[in-house]
Amino acid sequence: MSKLLNNVCSELQRLPGVGRRTALRLAMHILRMDVEMADSLSSSIARFRHDIRYCQSCNNLSDEALCPICSDSRRDRSVICIVEQVGDLLSIENTGQYHGLYHVLGGVISPMQGIGPSDLKIDLLCDKLLTGEVKEVIIAISTSVEGETTMFYLMSRLKAFPDVRVTTIARGVGFGDELEYVDELTITHALLNRRPL
Amino acid sequence: MSKLLNNVCSELQRLPGVGRRTALRLAMHILRMDVEMADSLSSSIARFRHDIRYCQSCNNLSDEALCPICSDSRRDRSVICIVEQVGDLLSIENTGQYHGLYHVLGGVISPMQGIGPSDLKIDLLCDKLLTGEVKEVIIAISTSVEGETTMFYLMSRLKAFPDVRVTTIARGVGFGDELEYVDELTITHALLNRRPL
Repeated sequence: MSKLLNNVCSELQRLPGVGRRTALRLAMHILRMDVEMADSLSSSIARFRHDIRYCQSCNNLSDEALCPICSDSRRDRSVICIVEQVGDLLSIENTGQYHGLYHVLGGVISPMQGIGPSDLKIDLLCDKLLTGEVKEVIIAISTSVEGETTMFYLMSRLKAFPDVRVTTIARGVGFGDELEYVDELTITHALLNRRPL
Repeated sequence: MSKLLNNVCSELQRLPGVGRRTALRLAMHILRMDVEMADSLSSSIARFRHDIRYCQSCNNLSDEALCPICSDSRRDRSVICIVEQVGDLLSIENTGQYHGLYHVLGGVISPMQGIGPSDLKIDLLCDKLLTGEVKEVIIAISTSVEGETTMFYLMSRLKAFPDVRVTTIARGVGFGDELEYVDELTITHALLNRRPL
């Protein structure tokens, strides 16, 4: 096997979900690309890894010291939505319905993976709350065991700010979900939190 | 969204099977990589696209003018196995059971995709057969409509070399395949070509 092909396949296999076969398929696709396109793919990876920064205020990925959201004067600075990771932030942004700020924890407390509270950007969050500008904190963390642990820890830290309202996103049966396939906990929760029509 | 992140996601989405979500997941993975590892991934892509060549003899991917197989003096030069693409060659090589040479067509005849006989490396194959060194040609092309068309065309070209034995790989029920789920054509073929035990 060609060394160049072998090399690119090994490198591609470091990516999640990419095995030997997929790596080969990707390599063959790269081969059919224009040289400029392949160069552009290659350089975008290197530039992303080298130049990306974390927003000093919310820990979102950013090109500058402050991310586009934190530096946008039209955003409502009285609400902060706490998410685990950048992907969650992007999902909420895609709805176009949230106009406050975010705070990206960068993970959840997970003793199994050696992630403790000090590994998350919780101090950075508390610093922002100290200014008194924030009126509400929305917790949008997943309901896994690690997520719940993180939520309890966050609640204990947020007690230091009694003027800040703490909320969490609604849990229930999703739009388009078929009741038949929804888990019992979600259905129980959706029943208990039923709303008048 | 950060421009660097947006850029790398757009570039990754050019790869087959990579949508917006997967691109984001890959980008997050690249972010967690060491800088050296990300650089190595990035440069392997560019080097592969720039420096890869096609073997002058068999059209396999190669770092040199001749691929490692064609330049290996231990390979049996009297047999040539014809395959559609490099991936097929690698699958056969992985068995460790074939010691002859290969010839990579680079595709199959497909009027739908505008691929005619002249787009495949068939002349290159005939040139090799002219030397009289080759005693057998094994056709290992897929049994799709395009594959069959290619096979018929190949047969007509190979008639010019009556001393060359033309064979094709055996078709039948694969090891581990459950008969229940094997298609009728394969089962019919496997029955007609049954062997004494």
